[in-house]
Amino acid sequence: MNEIDSCSRRRRERIRSMKKPTILLPLLLLLSNILSFSSAADFCVADLTLPETPSGYSCKKPTTVTVSDFVFSGLGVPGNTSNLIKAAVTPAFTTQFPGVNGLGLSLARLDLAVGGVIPLHTHPAGSELVLVVQGSILAGFISSSNGVYYKTLNHGDIMVFPQGLLHFQLNCGDSPAVAFASFSSPTPGLQITSFALFGNNLPSSVIEKVTFLDDAEVKKLKKVLGGSG
Amino acid sequence: MNEIDSCSRRRRERIRSMKKPTILLPLLLLLSNILSFSSAADFCVADLTLPETPSGYSCKKPTTVTVSDFVFSGLGVPGNTSNLIKAAVTPAFTTQFPGVNGLGLSLARLDLAVGGVIPLHTHPAGSELVLVVQGSILAGFISSSNGVYYKTLNHGDIMVFPQGLLHFQLNCGDSPAVAFASFSSPTPGLQITSFALFGNNLPSSVIEKVTFLDDAEVKKLKKVLGGSG
Amino acid sequence: MNEIDSCSRRRRERIRSMKKPTILLPLLLLLSNILSFSSAADFCVADLTLPETPSGYSCKKPTTVTVSDFVFSGLGVPGNTSNLIKAAVTPAFTTQFPGVNGLGLSLARLDLAVGGVIPLHTHPAGSELVLVVQGSILAGFISSSNGVYYKTLNHGDIMVFPQGLLHFQLNCGDSPAVAFASFSSPTPGLQITSFALFGNNLPSSVIEKVTFLDDAEVKKLKKVLGGSG
Amino acid sequence: MNEIDSCSRRRRERIRSMKKPTILLPLLLLLSNILSFSSAADFCVADLTLPETPSGYSCKKPTTVTVSDFVFSGLGVPGNTSNLIKAAVTPAFTTQFPGVNGLGLSLARLDLAVGGVIPLHTHPAGSELVLVVQGSILAGFISSSNGVYYKTLNHGDIMVFPQGLLHFQLNCGDSPAVAFASFSSPTPGLQITSFALFGNNLPSSVIEKVTFLDDAEVKKLKKVLGGSG
Amino acid sequence: MNEIDSCSRRRRERIRSMKKPTILLPLLLLLSNILSFSSAADFCVADLTLPETPSGYSCKKPTTVTVSDFVFSGLGVPGNTSNLIKAAVTPAFTTQFPGVNGLGLSLARLDLAVGGVIPLHTHPAGSELVLVVQGSILAGFISSSNGVYYKTLNHGDIMVFPQGLLHFQLNCGDSPAVAFASFSSPTPGLQITSFALFGNNLPSSVIEKVTFLDDAEVKKLKKVLGGSG
Amino acid sequence: MNEIDSCSRRRRERIRSMKKPTILLPLLLLLSNILSFSSAADFCVADLTLPETPSGYSCKKPTTVTVSDFVFSGLGVPGNTSNLIKAAVTPAFTTQFPGVNGLGLSLARLDLAVGGVIPLHTHPAGSELVLVVQGSILAGFISSSNGVYYKTLNHGDIMVFPQGLLHFQLNCGDSPAVAFASFSSPTPGLQITSFALFGNNLPSSVIEKVTFLDDAEVKKLKKVLGGSG
Repeated sequence: MNEIDSCSRRRRERIRSMKKPTILLPLLLLLSNILSFSSAADFCVADLTLPETPSGYSCKKPTTVTVSDFVFSGLGVPGNTSNLIKAAVTPAFTTQFPGVNGLGLSLARLDLAVGGVIPLHTHPAGSELVLVVQGSILAGFISSSNGVYYKTLNHGDIMVFPQGLLHFQLNCGDSPAVAFASFSSPTPGLQITSFALFGNNLPSSVIEKVTFLDDAEVKKLKKVLGGSG
Repeated sequence: MNEIDSCSRRRRERIRSMKKPTILLPLLLLLSNILSFSSAADFCVADLTLPETPSGYSCKKPTTVTVSDFVFSGLGVPGNTSNLIKAAVTPAFTTQFPGVNGLGLSLARLDLAVGGVIPLHTHPAGSELVLVVQGSILAGFISSSNGVYYKTLNHGDIMVFPQGLLHFQLNCGDSPAVAFASFSSPTPGLQITSFALFGNNLPSSVIEKVTFLDDAEVKKLKKVLGGSG
Repeated sequence: MNEIDSCSRRRRERIRSMKKPTILLPLLLLLSNILSFSSAADFCVADLTLPETPSGYSCKKPTTVTVSDFVFSGLGVPGNTSNLIKAAVTPAFTTQFPGVNGLGLSLARLDLAVGGVIPLHTHPAGSELVLVVQGSILAGFISSSNGVYYKTLNHGDIMVFPQGLLHFQLNCGDSPAVAFASFSSPTPGLQITSFALFGNNLPSSVIEKVTFLDDAEVKKLKKVLGGSG
Repeated sequence: MNEIDSCSRRRRERIRSMKKPTILLPLLLLLSNILSFSSAADFCVADLTLPETPSGYSCKKPTTVTVSDFVFSGLGVPGNTSNLIKAAVTPAFTTQFPGVNGLGLSLARLDLAVGGVIPLHTHPAGSELVLVVQGSILAGFISSSNGVYYKTLNHGDIMVFPQGLLHFQLNCGDSPAVAFASFSSPTPGLQITSFALFGNNLPSSVIEKVTFLDDAEVKKLKKVLGGSG
Repeated sequence: MNEIDSCSRRRRERIRSMKKPTILLPLLLLLSNILSFSSAADFCVADLTLPETPSGYSCKKPTTVTVSDFVFSGLGVPGNTSNLIKAAVTPAFTTQFPGVNGLGLSLARLDLAVGGVIPLHTHPAGSELVLVVQGSILAGFISSSNGVYYKTLNHGDIMVFPQGLLHFQLNCGDSPAVAFASFSSPTPGLQITSFALFGNNLPSSVIEKVTFLDDAEVKKLKKVLGGSG
Repeated sequence: MNEIDSCSRRRRERIRSMKKPTILLPLLLLLSNILSFSSAADFCVADLTLPETPSGYSCKKPTTVTVSDFVFSGLGVPGNTSNLIKAAVTPAFTTQFPGVNGLGLSLARLDLAVGGVIPLHTHPAGSELVLVVQGSILAGFISSSNGVYYKTLNHGDIMVFPQGLLHFQLNCGDSPAVAFASFSSPTPGLQITSFALFGNNLPSSVIEKVTFLDDAEVKKLKKVLGGSG
């Protein structure tokens, strides 16, 4: 390409001939011009003191942002599985990790002791991708058309759960299991079916009518899960 | 699945053996952990006192949200059709119904007296789906490529109007007509062509040049519709 | 605006001086030019014989589209409520009404006989707006943070259910109820919790582990709802 | 940062010690691995022979894509303004310029002779940004709330027209005007109000009812613009 | 269509029979009703004093918006090319032109003196469409799969650069070149590769490890471009 | 709530009184009705034999989908780090894992031997979240405004990299490092800066002009990385 070659020659001469002081002033002006129209649109670290909007939280002032806003260190510690479900979920959603605000993703750590369970639940606002790093996990979901998809996942396996569909994870192995769940939203939400049914004050009679469950079953589980009504 | 069976046995024993006090404390901790990372991302009831953003209004504090924020009761009353167009539109957009903020939809009631008309208009920000519940309505739209699509809709019929295209509804029947219009946005907007042409102070000469309409016609309709210039 | 006035004078003279034949040829060329770059982007009536994509179905050829593609007439007839739930849902989603493909909305009719129920369910892909047109309906939803929102809706009332959250409708009145549900997607999906739990072959032991339900309850409801395992 | 320094030393030694043949094979494997998971998601040049979808056309095979797919040369030639509106629009939308498919933008050239006009119109699917490069143009739009915004634009001026709103451009100057219009969609659509009203077979009586225009005016303009009915 | 004809007759009589005072009051009520539910959703002129959100800035109060918010006059003046790259970029992004906030597009002017260069760069948040209006520009981009696409663009040529991909523009001609770049975002961002590598305080050792560049080269360019470390 | 109580009583009687045969037929009809309007909108497993579209691949027929479509087992095996960069990336993007098509996320495994590096690169189409599971990784990114953010990440730490920005990972520790990278897109793309500069046939003179790099440096790295020109 002849035109490029002649371009090149011109340019190399130009660079060599410019002394540093000559370079520096127009360079600073140039940088200043370029940087003046860069905005914070690269990221929007959440300012949790400001109201939320449908697209996420308002942004912290860019001048106050540091690398710590983009790093989260809570997922290296096993969650406490001494509870009813013998499992723990440690989230890094916007509220815990403001740096993911507006960036379309988030993470959580799942710890399942032997026999542990992440009960049937949905994420209304995001799809989920589970990666098993320790032990084995039986995981599955149910589709809108009542298709059932489940499989035992071992170390290195991943499974995807489409947004909004009922799914679960179980540790049916002989040792604790650990997995990490990615989400396609910084705030995917979490609705655990049994807690939604039995862990609040929605009247038992309503629950029974909308689920076909027996009154005895509903009342019993409300006691277990702290509900009333 | 043998592994599930053994899982099951272990779990049933575990649940039975746990007395309620043993269940309750870890359960509360668990619930607290789970609820602590739920955010208001489920919904974002508009706080109309705060500025709007491109994605909608900022959200009311979740702690102030009640069921009333999700219910709107204004669409059961017929609108007042004693006007130029013998029709009325009763909207439930964000401004009237803050609960739809950020949720991707809204509704309006259309009342058309005999001979009533919803004049030619567009919704810049949403598609529309009209359902006729009383009487009959002649409805139609025009596409970008000048295709014309219209039909008389009777009780139970629905018609969809793609976003941004000119459309209209007419009551050419013998009795009042009522319809409900769904929109694919909580703020679909509404631009009525004749009001936009004749109901403001855009100079007549400009209107004539950009529409080919006669000066006499423009001036006359400006008088009727309250415009000037 | 002097420049506009002189513009106007020139133009009116030009229009008047042009005879129809003089107008017609350049007009046709102009129309042809304009229409040549209009595309089918206004709408995309689903061609259900072609594969679906993440954004919806491929479009029918625009030349084959008629007004019938934008009109759906199935919602005027009450659904058949002689079933277990004494209710019926008559949808106008893409599969039934290809005209809504890609337009961001759809509709369904809900019929609830006395005591009828639309069981607890979610729509993974859309928010819902229910309008009661006859009778009364007790409707409610549960949020991710376990907030419970329910109310009795009467004629003309509307209630919004955010995407992906568990919700239900009940007819606790003395007469049949009818409502129309708008959705913020042409394919919102529908996952009925009890059918998802008990209407397929997901093993009972898994269900019990992930919901805390008793084996007896699970087995019983599997029989009622046609499940197995 | 000591750890980086030691890293650096190790690396420089490694690079220097690797002879080219040693580099080349693992490099090729590496490149092959990396390139194997790159997809065509960078771009999606439209294959106009395949059906459209709500998100745009299906993509040409990446192996058939060349630089010519990303370059369009039609906007340097003035459009033919010998027509009714003394203006021309030369588009580079997907149909003319398949390379913009799925990329969120497109362009068009506007030529306005003295007295020329781009008649009142909307773009249902995109916002517009007009840049004047020659002459002067009176441009304006009307908002949903009937606000009127217009100004004379000179060389180098730009004006933005929000999606879906009625707007126009006029050349009220003494010389031909040229502008370029950017759009926020590869297929913004174009609906010219007067052509939509008078250039098709929508019955005159309907037009009169939905616009308040006189029958005489409607009939006259239908003759001028080639409509019927 | 007989029903339309009878409609028409009724309407024309109605309009004629209404005297202006009769028209005006219900018209004003009607207009008031219609305008009362129009929102600012048409546009959202940025209030730069308020925090940014993931979807853009909060909106100025609609009552304070004038036509000046939609017009920007800075692109008619050549940028100052007396700098290292012999080029200038004059942006009209949200920060300079608040009217584009939330509207999905923006614009910039590119001036390239003879031998000028817009160095290799990306726009993380938008695709770009360059239109050459003066001179000629060698422009190109590199795809994820390492495909190279470049061409000399002359007056009237446009080239599209998909979002996020490395691209550049060079003036290898004999006269100054001017182009205008449209973007598919009001804040597309700008990351110039060499400035990102050499214009900040990222340690040289890190740069060398992640780019394979020689220490001498890195140190030299850090001096030229104002970096350190 | 008295109305609910009476509802409940009626319903329990109804259920008890229904014998299984009575339940089964209307149930099957009901299920059939419900399932008939479920669509494949829950997910869209990619059919890689069909063309791609801007929103992803067309979907496999739902009837051919099994759980294997939602599980990927390639991330448990360390990648081969015997190459120039002493690192490997094992992706699970759409091409490898068709189940993520249209679901908004994907995953990859990163293996970095001692001194290994994932060279400076961008993902044009998605943000990234890196989780370190073994060893330690120095990771960082550069913003559009030339801010530099880097930190050493240890086991359990995560760091987010906004879409489209230059970033890198280095193993400056004493042992192999392993991390998993989530992306906010099923096809985030990958552009490695040095490969894009030196690994193809973009002429050296162009590279030098657009980066300020010396000809010697460019030529040398082209040899190392397999480029030409």
